[in-house]
Amino acid sequence: MDSPHTTRVPKVFRVRTEIDAILAELAEGDPVPSERELATRFGVARETVRHALRELLVEGRIRRRGRGTVVSRPKLTQPLSLRSYTEGAISLGRVPGRIVVTWEDVAADAQTAIDLEVEPGIPVMHLERVLLADGERIGLESTYLPLHRFGGLRGSYDPTTSLYAAIRATGVSFAGARERIETVLASPREAGLLESTTALPMLLLHRRSVDADGAPIERVRSLYRGDRVAFEARLSPETG
Amino acid sequence: MDSPHTTRVPKVFRVRTEIDAILAELAEGDPVPSERELATRFGVARETVRHALRELLVEGRIRRRGRGTVVSRPKLTQPLSLRSYTEGAISLGRVPGRIVVTWEDVAADAQTAIDLEVEPGIPVMHLERVLLADGERIGLESTYLPLHRFGGLRGSYDPTTSLYAAIRATGVSFAGARERIETVLASPREAGLLESTTALPMLLLHRRSVDADGAPIERVRSLYRGDRVAFEARLSPETG
Repeated sequence: MDSPHTTRVPKVFRVRTEIDAILAELAEGDPVPSERELATRFGVARETVRHALRELLVEGRIRRRGRGTVVSRPKLTQPLSLRSYTEGAISLGRVPGRIVVTWEDVAADAQTAIDLEVEPGIPVMHLERVLLADGERIGLESTYLPLHRFGGLRGSYDPTTSLYAAIRATGVSFAGARERIETVLASPREAGLLESTTALPMLLLHRRSVDADGAPIERVRSLYRGDRVAFEARLSPETG
Repeated sequence: MDSPHTTRVPKVFRVRTEIDAILAELAEGDPVPSERELATRFGVARETVRHALRELLVEGRIRRRGRGTVVSRPKLTQPLSLRSYTEGAISLGRVPGRIVVTWEDVAADAQTAIDLEVEPGIPVMHLERVLLADGERIGLESTYLPLHRFGGLRGSYDPTTSLYAAIRATGVSFAGARERIETVLASPREAGLLESTTALPMLLLHRRSVDADGAPIERVRSLYRGDRVAFEARLSPETG
């Protein structure tokens, strides 16, 4: 574990503020001045500049492109809602896409059995997909569905399209969900699938959705790149 | 940036599964077997065990205590709601506390001015506190309040108590809020105040609260230790 480098605070903070001011003048996709150039300009060690650039990378303000670094577009900010990823991305003006990683039946583990109200160990449908926004990998979604309700999707559903639309087409409507939000580091496998690294923080969401009768529809585990995605909630006195 | 260590996946995954099984048999506060002991038991390199233990530390399943490692209590799971941190912690059976770090007037920056509907540069009240649960540092909260509404708190409010209760006591009620949730790494200063490190992911929340007339009450920036805190939302067709 690192110990807090409290002595480095003032210099890194000053450099960070100066770089923020530079970025504010640049447009999306513009190249960011090099570490060496910034170090010379501010009269500080390259290590100090590297620290500030690393923060900006984690926050998604800048990104690597080829051998250089460019200004990022803003994070995809998704409302916390019953809508699917697909619908959310479209409403934000992004083009959604999915890459199917796994589509198989698996034995329900303890939590999946509880969430789907099935016996532990019985087969459930597992669909794992990389979520894309404008062709870029931003999330990894694992959905578990009870076979007795949705086994029929096997023959009809194209897993590169919206799963929520396919579920609704079977006459089932989403009436409620509980969603848990945490932050984690990706496993090496997950980092690979997301073209990210095991050092960049991710947002981890677990969702359980039910229909109007309270019967479970799905259990979903979604991992989103923390440098590309944020969530937003509107709270009212009735919330929660 | 690290590259994904895809070749290490199967062994780390197996070791992680075995350690999970061991932890499932232990109670909160029980010591976790040492890295050396686990490596011997599983017949793997200590580096492999270290990788798995590191994951568990980030996830908050285990924690350091003195020179050893013990099983953690579950994360504090807060509902996303208009309630204050204080009210949320109490409802979860935890004892809330606050350590005042800063209480001062500062010039409103651009975003604070927009959120509080004041002119940029005019003084606003800034209250920065470390949030405690059962005496443990779990979050760092920065609240900005418009002085023309809440300047009177200066003389009457004890900043180690609930700010929301004090605001309500002035006759103002919280009618709505918008909250943005992201993940970041802490700055060295923040990591120090949270007794954490700059390598552990944090949850970053920005909230803007308004009263029944839609007039701004506060802008809040809260940083929570990702290994100690999770959030939960209940979604309905009306949400978002």
